[in-house]
Amino acid sequence: MEAFSDGVLAVIITIMVLEMRPPHDATLAALTPVLPVLLSYLLSFVYVGIYWNNHHHLLHATQHVNGATLWANLHLLFWLSLIPFTTSWMDENHFASWPTAVYGIVLMFAGAAYFILTRTLIRLHGRGSTLATSIGRDRKSKLSVVIYAAAIPLAFVHAWIAGAGYVLVAIIWLVPDPRIERKAAQSTEENA
Amino acid sequence: MEAFSDGVLAVIITIMVLEMRPPHDATLAALTPVLPVLLSYLLSFVYVGIYWNNHHHLLHATQHVNGATLWANLHLLFWLSLIPFTTSWMDENHFASWPTAVYGIVLMFAGAAYFILTRTLIRLHGRGSTLATSIGRDRKSKLSVVIYAAAIPLAFVHAWIAGAGYVLVAIIWLVPDPRIERKAAQSTEENA
Amino acid sequence: MEAFSDGVLAVIITIMVLEMRPPHDATLAALTPVLPVLLSYLLSFVYVGIYWNNHHHLLHATQHVNGATLWANLHLLFWLSLIPFTTSWMDENHFASWPTAVYGIVLMFAGAAYFILTRTLIRLHGRGSTLATSIGRDRKSKLSVVIYAAAIPLAFVHAWIAGAGYVLVAIIWLVPDPRIERKAAQSTEENA
Amino acid sequence: MEAFSDGVLAVIITIMVLEMRPPHDATLAALTPVLPVLLSYLLSFVYVGIYWNNHHHLLHATQHVNGATLWANLHLLFWLSLIPFTTSWMDENHFASWPTAVYGIVLMFAGAAYFILTRTLIRLHGRGSTLATSIGRDRKSKLSVVIYAAAIPLAFVHAWIAGAGYVLVAIIWLVPDPRIERKAAQSTEENA
Repeated sequence: MEAFSDGVLAVIITIMVLEMRPPHDATLAALTPVLPVLLSYLLSFVYVGIYWNNHHHLLHATQHVNGATLWANLHLLFWLSLIPFTTSWMDENHFASWPTAVYGIVLMFAGAAYFILTRTLIRLHGRGSTLATSIGRDRKSKLSVVIYAAAIPLAFVHAWIAGAGYVLVAIIWLVPDPRIERKAAQSTEENA
Repeated sequence: MEAFSDGVLAVIITIMVLEMRPPHDATLAALTPVLPVLLSYLLSFVYVGIYWNNHHHLLHATQHVNGATLWANLHLLFWLSLIPFTTSWMDENHFASWPTAVYGIVLMFAGAAYFILTRTLIRLHGRGSTLATSIGRDRKSKLSVVIYAAAIPLAFVHAWIAGAGYVLVAIIWLVPDPRIERKAAQSTEENA
Repeated sequence: MEAFSDGVLAVIITIMVLEMRPPHDATLAALTPVLPVLLSYLLSFVYVGIYWNNHHHLLHATQHVNGATLWANLHLLFWLSLIPFTTSWMDENHFASWPTAVYGIVLMFAGAAYFILTRTLIRLHGRGSTLATSIGRDRKSKLSVVIYAAAIPLAFVHAWIAGAGYVLVAIIWLVPDPRIERKAAQSTEENA
Repeated sequence: MEAFSDGVLAVIITIMVLEMRPPHDATLAALTPVLPVLLSYLLSFVYVGIYWNNHHHLLHATQHVNGATLWANLHLLFWLSLIPFTTSWMDENHFASWPTAVYGIVLMFAGAAYFILTRTLIRLHGRGSTLATSIGRDRKSKLSVVIYAAAIPLAFVHAWIAGAGYVLVAIIWLVPDPRIERKAAQSTEENA
């Protein structure tokens, strides 16, 4: 399951570069309109990176999978696969309200899909399993949903407010959580 | 063999997103014509997901491969690789009869190629092998061919009838089969 | 090394589909000009498939690699990565002489790169190694070069003569060699 | 971590081919303007190849990873993922000063990211670890930065001087270092 997911995530993260059209002029000024595109690429790159990172840790704590898990995983990959499309729509319209809101909605659904995947795995492994304890109360997931729910409608006030919300969610996930880090270190010690 | 197949399936499933061009306007209304494209993407995504899922289970029950198996596998990947092309043709012509029929024909050939792959593997492992019993009488495959054969000509009556047929086949494969699930659970217990 | 090569080959084999633009009309007649494109895609697909197949067997007989091997492998991947480009050029010009000849030249260089890779591996493992004996006298490689050398200039007489030569090389590699098959079967028995 | 990185590098190295548009005419002369594009593709291919090669050796000497390592690795992949974009910009403007300089800047950041990755790994493994000794004083990395720093401003004198600098860095990394080769041979002996 990891090989396929890694493959899909690797393609998602790199095809976004294909959407970034190089400017026609050869001046530094020609690169200026590409800058917000580059920033949105960076944000999407970081998001896919966070999912890959968490997914990686999650699967290392996983002992067995069933059909429901495989489909919960594909469900997550489906929403993540829409990120290049929404990034591209947002870029072409210079961060207009609707594209920016839809970008957030796709991120929120990806977050929900990840939550469903963790629940499916916990149900399979039991509430007392290492997997369940390492996921814990999953406060970051819940906080993310709250921020998304606030940020998405604010895209209609100003796109950058929504954007700030999406960046905030990314930062929450990027800041290492010492407790999880310690557990992750133990579980990945044996394989690089 | 699995790494390569996973790679090809990962690319197939994600390049379809590249075919989905974001609308030029930034309104929600601009997203309406993209909706059927999104639905056809969803259907193709689910189909590739089903093949990956089955392929995954199939290879876990496989003990050895030979040249014939490798080519039977490539034959399957060839038909699956045509799915983005036919999806795209269907989308561009708003589900006209011929593109919708050709989409179904490619799905049917992929189904036939999967059937050939299972037969090649059974011949190699023997009729009494775990692999042969886990594939069993393969009623789903046979039922799928019947539905395809009925749905494809109906594309010329109305494209949505054919589409309903393709969705029906997908549902048949999505509904978990408790007997297979149990066997699959045993064989994948050791590796996530 | 295999994971990376598999990834590159998986991308090469599938991006060729991206080059196949769906026709704008929804009739079966509109598919006719796509037919030679489909045939050239099929040929290139089979070629990449053959290389993957041989590469797979080759790496299974490999016990260790060094820097020279990694670069010999990248050299092979470089020529294979040009196949989508030359296929596309040939298609756009309806199998004109030069594109058809250049297509063959790229195939010939890929063949030479594969030959270099096998020699690099034999030098590393020693002439008496299982790897060296399983590669043997490599008559297929030598015969392929002879056919390419004859077919490429014939592209200027008629593109289809060259095309027939390329198909002939593919057939030579597709026909299973019972002696190799037996050895391959032994070496792949343990891992699917 | 290696599977994902290999996937990303495999996609990066092959999507550059997608950027190479085949010429519209079928003459050999039509291929002439493609020649510099092909050369820049070759250079970028070699660069990604070098990174893959080093990355491969680096991960084989790695015993454990943590969150910081995963992000240092993603940081490297981010800069490498910009190579197709800058290659394409440089090609479209026939090696004008700014695109050529920006191409070098991206290479330099990728080099810096690789350096950060090695430092992160050394901090995790300890200065006396096999990993630390196999990386050693890392003179090649330091020399590369010096050449980049000299070559990038020279792009405004003449693009080919900068280009020569980039080629020089590639050659420095391509020339096998007997001491590293010996260590690498020991560490990869067990797995091909």
